[in-house]
Amino acid sequence: MDAGWIKKVLEDVGSGRLSVAEALSRLKNLPFEDLGWATLDQHRTLRQGYPEIIFGQGKTAPEIIGIMSGLIEAGDNVLVTRLGPETASLVCGKFPEAKYHERARCLTLIRGTNKIAGRGKIMIISAGTSDQPIAEEALVTAGFLGHETDYLQDVGVAGLHRLLSRMDRLADASVFIVVAGMEGALPSVVGGLVDKPVIAVPTSVGYGASFRGVAALLGMLNSCASGVCVVNIDNGFGAAYAAALINRL
Amino acid sequence: MDAGWIKKVLEDVGSGRLSVAEALSRLKNLPFEDLGWATLDQHRTLRQGYPEIIFGQGKTAPEIIGIMSGLIEAGDNVLVTRLGPETASLVCGKFPEAKYHERARCLTLIRGTNKIAGRGKIMIISAGTSDQPIAEEALVTAGFLGHETDYLQDVGVAGLHRLLSRMDRLADASVFIVVAGMEGALPSVVGGLVDKPVIAVPTSVGYGASFRGVAALLGMLNSCASGVCVVNIDNGFGAAYAAALINRL
Amino acid sequence: MDAGWIKKVLEDVGSGRLSVAEALSRLKNLPFEDLGWATLDQHRTLRQGYPEIIFGQGKTAPEIIGIMSGLIEAGDNVLVTRLGPETASLVCGKFPEAKYHERARCLTLIRGTNKIAGRGKIMIISAGTSDQPIAEEALVTAGFLGHETDYLQDVGVAGLHRLLSRMDRLADASVFIVVAGMEGALPSVVGGLVDKPVIAVPTSVGYGASFRGVAALLGMLNSCASGVCVVNIDNGFGAAYAAALINRL
Amino acid sequence: MDAGWIKKVLEDVGSGRLSVAEALSRLKNLPFEDLGWATLDQHRTLRQGYPEIIFGQGKTAPEIIGIMSGLIEAGDNVLVTRLGPETASLVCGKFPEAKYHERARCLTLIRGTNKIAGRGKIMIISAGTSDQPIAEEALVTAGFLGHETDYLQDVGVAGLHRLLSRMDRLADASVFIVVAGMEGALPSVVGGLVDKPVIAVPTSVGYGASFRGVAALLGMLNSCASGVCVVNIDNGFGAAYAAALINRL
Amino acid sequence: MDAGWIKKVLEDVGSGRLSVAEALSRLKNLPFEDLGWATLDQHRTLRQGYPEIIFGQGKTAPEIIGIMSGLIEAGDNVLVTRLGPETASLVCGKFPEAKYHERARCLTLIRGTNKIAGRGKIMIISAGTSDQPIAEEALVTAGFLGHETDYLQDVGVAGLHRLLSRMDRLADASVFIVVAGMEGALPSVVGGLVDKPVIAVPTSVGYGASFRGVAALLGMLNSCASGVCVVNIDNGFGAAYAAALINRL
Amino acid sequence: MDAGWIKKVLEDVGSGRLSVAEALSRLKNLPFEDLGWATLDQHRTLRQGYPEIIFGQGKTAPEIIGIMSGLIEAGDNVLVTRLGPETASLVCGKFPEAKYHERARCLTLIRGTNKIAGRGKIMIISAGTSDQPIAEEALVTAGFLGHETDYLQDVGVAGLHRLLSRMDRLADASVFIVVAGMEGALPSVVGGLVDKPVIAVPTSVGYGASFRGVAALLGMLNSCASGVCVVNIDNGFGAAYAAALINRL
Amino acid sequence: MDAGWIKKVLEDVGSGRLSVAEALSRLKNLPFEDLGWATLDQHRTLRQGYPEIIFGQGKTAPEIIGIMSGLIEAGDNVLVTRLGPETASLVCGKFPEAKYHERARCLTLIRGTNKIAGRGKIMIISAGTSDQPIAEEALVTAGFLGHETDYLQDVGVAGLHRLLSRMDRLADASVFIVVAGMEGALPSVVGGLVDKPVIAVPTSVGYGASFRGVAALLGMLNSCASGVCVVNIDNGFGAAYAAALINRL
Amino acid sequence: MDAGWIKKVLEDVGSGRLSVAEALSRLKNLPFEDLGWATLDQHRTLRQGYPEIIFGQGKTAPEIIGIMSGLIEAGDNVLVTRLGPETASLVCGKFPEAKYHERARCLTLIRGTNKIAGRGKIMIISAGTSDQPIAEEALVTAGFLGHETDYLQDVGVAGLHRLLSRMDRLADASVFIVVAGMEGALPSVVGGLVDKPVIAVPTSVGYGASFRGVAALLGMLNSCASGVCVVNIDNGFGAAYAAALINRL
Repeated sequence: MDAGWIKKVLEDVGSGRLSVAEALSRLKNLPFEDLGWATLDQHRTLRQGYPEIIFGQGKTAPEIIGIMSGLIEAGDNVLVTRLGPETASLVCGKFPEAKYHERARCLTLIRGTNKIAGRGKIMIISAGTSDQPIAEEALVTAGFLGHETDYLQDVGVAGLHRLLSRMDRLADASVFIVVAGMEGALPSVVGGLVDKPVIAVPTSVGYGASFRGVAALLGMLNSCASGVCVVNIDNGFGAAYAAALINRL
Repeated sequence: MDAGWIKKVLEDVGSGRLSVAEALSRLKNLPFEDLGWATLDQHRTLRQGYPEIIFGQGKTAPEIIGIMSGLIEAGDNVLVTRLGPETASLVCGKFPEAKYHERARCLTLIRGTNKIAGRGKIMIISAGTSDQPIAEEALVTAGFLGHETDYLQDVGVAGLHRLLSRMDRLADASVFIVVAGMEGALPSVVGGLVDKPVIAVPTSVGYGASFRGVAALLGMLNSCASGVCVVNIDNGFGAAYAAALINRL
Repeated sequence: MDAGWIKKVLEDVGSGRLSVAEALSRLKNLPFEDLGWATLDQHRTLRQGYPEIIFGQGKTAPEIIGIMSGLIEAGDNVLVTRLGPETASLVCGKFPEAKYHERARCLTLIRGTNKIAGRGKIMIISAGTSDQPIAEEALVTAGFLGHETDYLQDVGVAGLHRLLSRMDRLADASVFIVVAGMEGALPSVVGGLVDKPVIAVPTSVGYGASFRGVAALLGMLNSCASGVCVVNIDNGFGAAYAAALINRL
Repeated sequence: MDAGWIKKVLEDVGSGRLSVAEALSRLKNLPFEDLGWATLDQHRTLRQGYPEIIFGQGKTAPEIIGIMSGLIEAGDNVLVTRLGPETASLVCGKFPEAKYHERARCLTLIRGTNKIAGRGKIMIISAGTSDQPIAEEALVTAGFLGHETDYLQDVGVAGLHRLLSRMDRLADASVFIVVAGMEGALPSVVGGLVDKPVIAVPTSVGYGASFRGVAALLGMLNSCASGVCVVNIDNGFGAAYAAALINRL
Repeated sequence: MDAGWIKKVLEDVGSGRLSVAEALSRLKNLPFEDLGWATLDQHRTLRQGYPEIIFGQGKTAPEIIGIMSGLIEAGDNVLVTRLGPETASLVCGKFPEAKYHERARCLTLIRGTNKIAGRGKIMIISAGTSDQPIAEEALVTAGFLGHETDYLQDVGVAGLHRLLSRMDRLADASVFIVVAGMEGALPSVVGGLVDKPVIAVPTSVGYGASFRGVAALLGMLNSCASGVCVVNIDNGFGAAYAAALINRL
Repeated sequence: MDAGWIKKVLEDVGSGRLSVAEALSRLKNLPFEDLGWATLDQHRTLRQGYPEIIFGQGKTAPEIIGIMSGLIEAGDNVLVTRLGPETASLVCGKFPEAKYHERARCLTLIRGTNKIAGRGKIMIISAGTSDQPIAEEALVTAGFLGHETDYLQDVGVAGLHRLLSRMDRLADASVFIVVAGMEGALPSVVGGLVDKPVIAVPTSVGYGASFRGVAALLGMLNSCASGVCVVNIDNGFGAAYAAALINRL
Repeated sequence: MDAGWIKKVLEDVGSGRLSVAEALSRLKNLPFEDLGWATLDQHRTLRQGYPEIIFGQGKTAPEIIGIMSGLIEAGDNVLVTRLGPETASLVCGKFPEAKYHERARCLTLIRGTNKIAGRGKIMIISAGTSDQPIAEEALVTAGFLGHETDYLQDVGVAGLHRLLSRMDRLADASVFIVVAGMEGALPSVVGGLVDKPVIAVPTSVGYGASFRGVAALLGMLNSCASGVCVVNIDNGFGAAYAAALINRL
Repeated sequence: MDAGWIKKVLEDVGSGRLSVAEALSRLKNLPFEDLGWATLDQHRTLRQGYPEIIFGQGKTAPEIIGIMSGLIEAGDNVLVTRLGPETASLVCGKFPEAKYHERARCLTLIRGTNKIAGRGKIMIISAGTSDQPIAEEALVTAGFLGHETDYLQDVGVAGLHRLLSRMDRLADASVFIVVAGMEGALPSVVGGLVDKPVIAVPTSVGYGASFRGVAALLGMLNSCASGVCVVNIDNGFGAAYAAALINRL
């Protein structure tokens, strides 16, 4: 609700410049979004403290360049996720200051300062080397959203000592993103070691009866550790977004 | 948006009884629903030409009696779906004018006249004798919603002549509800014979690899006859509701 | 039943040119289709008010050109669905008056006038930008079948204000086709806002646990809004065909 | 059991050249296959009335040529199934008298006469044009195995009159192979019209919730017509082999 | 097509008692079923050489008694399948000459003689003791339909010698019904030993990952032995019906 | 690591009472848990700020009473989840100060004060009346863990105005638990309206193709709203536990 | 192969009492099992070092008593698995020396000594208290088969220190049976800690998306630890049998 | 635990160079891995009797060459699994002494001697020719791990005599790896013939309802032969690794 506009109407009624009937008609025909949804839009604007994010998959380089140009004109930073190297190379040709994170398949273009300090550190943990692309999508996203991050790789449950020897770094984080394929057991183990929220990301890593991530997804949903939440298979971005909302509290 | 209330505010501003600031504050704090959602509610009221319907499953007799009492006081007719015979018997003890349709597992209580004439006839067709409860739930619902109905039973595709010998009755209907379990093939056959909308209802009838209606559901979704739509397994009520919306056009 | 042929037989019997035994034998050996199926065929011809439609997927350009030639000779308009751009380009080379709808992956060739006015407007609503190809297949099909259409894009449930601010356009339609991937929630929301039939089209848009449209399909089948029917995943054509049958009533 | 060898042992015992203990020891150590499995092998040889069949999928042209050479030397006819056109072309270059059935993706090489007359006719029926490759695999196989065949195409259940107008040809067959994708309803309809064994072949034709033939498979397993048996998805060869065993009885 | 009725019309035309126009009108209005479906009905009557069969599951004793009374009056024998012992006991109270086959959960009442001699013997083979109820449903059904049967129990693939030691009995049969739960491997083994049609019946016997017969069903559909067909889980009746059609050839 | 014990060893070495070799051997044989896991246990103890929770399902009243007695002796408060009314009644007979929350199927016994103030409010939102048991399990758990809660019931997406009219209460919460069965669309809508973490709880409410919560689960995993995490079907406790970890940050 | 019988034949040939032709004929007609399967049977007898085991599920007390009587007469020990307490009580009434293991749902009756010493110890590990019945089925079975066992309970991965503090006992075993429901992660962790074979047993413990053990099963099949094998859901017996075969090597 | 380092601390305490408090502090801050995980690492080193193995899938030639160089420098032998021919060719260009096993898709480089003699022979059995790649992956792996192997190919259950005629070779092995696609029945048959552990490997061989190995996997999990364990689909390496652990006992 644009208070200024309504105030003007009321003042005109008060001063007699506008009849009551005319004022009523203007208020009644006020487009829906200008009235009822003002609150919502303010909510959304607030959240736009998080700059716009582009889902790159299935988009052509010209399409991405077009959307990016609009955002850049508006003074926003840009994150493009799920972007293949060929398209990225075309986009970077247009925006030389953009940075392509190859393993994460993400592109960032930071012009302004988007540092909204989170309260603590977001720790990303990956089970195997094949889980790294998803883990790094989370890493790049969390950083882009203005959060400090830590990254622990290749600490799968079949070699527990690799994880346990980093208990000090675990103790130092506020939110955990745990990325694992195959049996997806790592979030349960991490959830048993820490007393912070754990967001589990199943990956489509594996073969045969992993069913492209379903085994890991089910494992995580059935975690015996309390406090573990799950996002979609390979959804590193979504996990980082949720972690950012948590860490911003 | 209650125009009277707003008009009063505007008049008070016009007459100087209310300051602009005060008026603005009142408008701003106007409860959300009173502004933006008026339109929606009018839409819903319009639809309430269809009287209230109670989903009986999992509700106790006292709970159902309570809801029914409210509706009856408001002058509405009542339809209760998915109601077992024991609960129905208790409810009928309280409302002797109610009628329990045993095979359909529905209860109706018609006091006023709820006849909103549809444009044509809704024809319900069932494949086997075991599909009758769902077919009759559709039958009772469509009648309750004020539509003329026809009912063709036990005309499964393994005995085509039973269906084909009723081509005249098929030609007479405006919308079709076709109820089938097992392989769920009947809607495809009906869809090939008529040029009217067909709503397919898979039932959980069958055993083994019917997977409680999944085989029929998939069969119907993959129908080779154009113009076949599908509702949830055993959802005779939903099919009748959709048919009523179509026939009311 | 070819009345002329039978009449000739009867006349020959009447005039004594044909014995009763001979006439009986001819009638008995009358091919099945010429007798019993006449009614059916008349039904089908009636429906042929809707011109012939070609499913392009898996067909070569020469095959499509061949079928089209036959239809065009018969004076029919042509719609080809699921047609890739390469094949389309070959077909258009042969029929320059054909029009290829790239995003919808459809080709139309309108020579005669196929306007069978529907009673109202068919509104197509899509949840996200990736759902547009399926939505536009529905759009092109509904138009081809002679119906007025409206098209509302990119109004997914995570940004409700986009949908709610178009309540006026929603109020103006007779049948709804709602196209959504991912969680497939949009038909439930639309079904709660309108009192007209809603045909839900799940799309294979999404990744991971969307299982190429299964998540959206299940969401739609379990819609909490009454009056929602569902067609197969990505079946924009089928939805439009059903909507046309409904709107033609 | 090599009777000659055993006879020799017995004669040696009879003549005293071999002690009973020694003979016993020889019999005990007789290799398993030479004894017990003779019967089985005779059974298999009997069945070899059906010439050898090669599953072409995943085999290279040289591999197929190698196997074929062996069979041809032994005087056998050859059938290769699931053979792509490129490989087929290489194989035909080597064996000019071979015939490649492109739509069936089969290659046959008939030198001797393999006509083992069946008792009746095997009728193959296909629901849609896309089901033809599988139907024709069955057709070629049944012919190769020495059976008379009939073939009815494109008689899906959404246009029943196409099937019903061929009741005379249906009446003429001994075994039915019914091939259908999508909802897989055709075998139920055929099973209701005839009193002969029906072998249903689901095909992977369809999209979305057809799940590459699963919908058709489930539909056929749940057929409401008694006497319908089912083979694996796209298994035209298997259906023809079973039909041949039935027709040979 | 009632030839008498048509002949009368023709004669009346020939004699001038009926005008051509009037005769044409009568023929045109001839009810569909009296014309086109005569052939079909004759087919069905032919098949009625197999007496009526009642699916007992979900039917009450009075319902079954009612249907049976009708059949018995018509001089038919009766088979009721899937009949629990309590209901059976009530039915037998009414028809003392009926026989209840407890393990097969079938009831038969043989008054006339229903012996339509098959060409050979139908052999039923069961893998484990828990598969016996389904195997015996097949046994009772095949006998009821007038076929000679043999029954080999408890010859699962983990103890091959039990099956192999009965090669002589295997050699003696014309059609095989092989019933197995768990991994469902027995039909493949039997199919490799015989050169006759094999109908595989998966049972819901097993636990855990047998998924109530799905493991056995998939095993049978993927049988490496050619000539194996499959029916629905636990469908002993259907297997026997199909076997009877095959053996009757 | 028991510092006292090690200190004693070191002192003995320092004083010469213990040789270096002997000390080394003692340290080497130190039981694993006494060394390496000290840190872990301290972590766990810290978390025990959250009192012990008992999963009641499948436990008998005596078993529950036994565990509770131990906790009460240790001065802890008690929460038992998934407890049926009969067992609860027996447990309450033993501990009259316990409180049974019937709809939530939870029992609490609060003796000490377990108020660890969270930073904000945890809001629980349920879609339908049948989702209330799970929502209230979350409600009771969150309260038990020392968090302020708010509860919004029966605001499913088919009646959006019910949710939208409570935007003020939504604006007031720090973490959201959204509970929904059927199509599970509510978390997407809530996630689009707020800028706080949303934990989605699918329930097994629904029938047919809801597959006991799978449809809702898939819908939530594929939510188009960023920042939505998911827990197991019907896991109200787990959602509350995760929300508590988030709100405690 | 009955050596005595064959020896007699040979002697008769040697002594001239039997002609070679006659002897040959007798040998040829020797029943299959008496010849070819001797080897197999000797193999089986060897394995009968493991006494007979009865699968109790679905068997009545009289049936079990009957089988047991036969075994006991033959001097065998008896193990009955999957035996409910009611049936067990009836069986124990008949055989007072039998012992019922209530949690394992097994009954043993040890008369002779069945101690075939294994090479090492079989260690059974269970993740949660609800997994104990399956773990104890394995425990009782392994003991019955003559192996030394160790049992570690309630050491799920969410509390790793419970497992790690027993490294000494882990080091002491030759084969591991790891029993877990929910996410089934424990075998991966154990497999990473030991260098011995690990047999994983998924249990049907869990709810919601555990799908009665499927989540655990998939987790185990996708274990990131090499050397983990899996048996069917809840198959404690099978795991113990396999472990016994391994330990007997 | 680095005994040297600790010994130094103790000696310094013993000699008074270090105070008890200082020593205690050093021990307390000792990195976790240096203390608690020593035992584990020794376990792992022990197992490293099995040289390092590289999972080649998804790795580039330079990545593999890099890892191999490190291992070779350390004096280890090398096994790379799941390596395509193109990558293999590049790797072999770098390491001419490496050997590529094309059908097994494995590369080995044996420099030292890695013969840790197993107790017996590991027998690999494959059902069909298409299963050979997986069988040979197991063969190469088992050999690489220092075990004697035997290999029986193409002995599927539809031709039992092929397996049964090699009973002597079966009798000679200590552990069995049975590889089968399609219905996966071979492990049950082998398990019934031998009294040794059987590791079943389902392959993704098949089509249609084999669901890329799921049918075989389920068949094996439900094997009616006791003592059969299962690994993931196509996991020949894992089966060999488990067999090696068993045979090493």
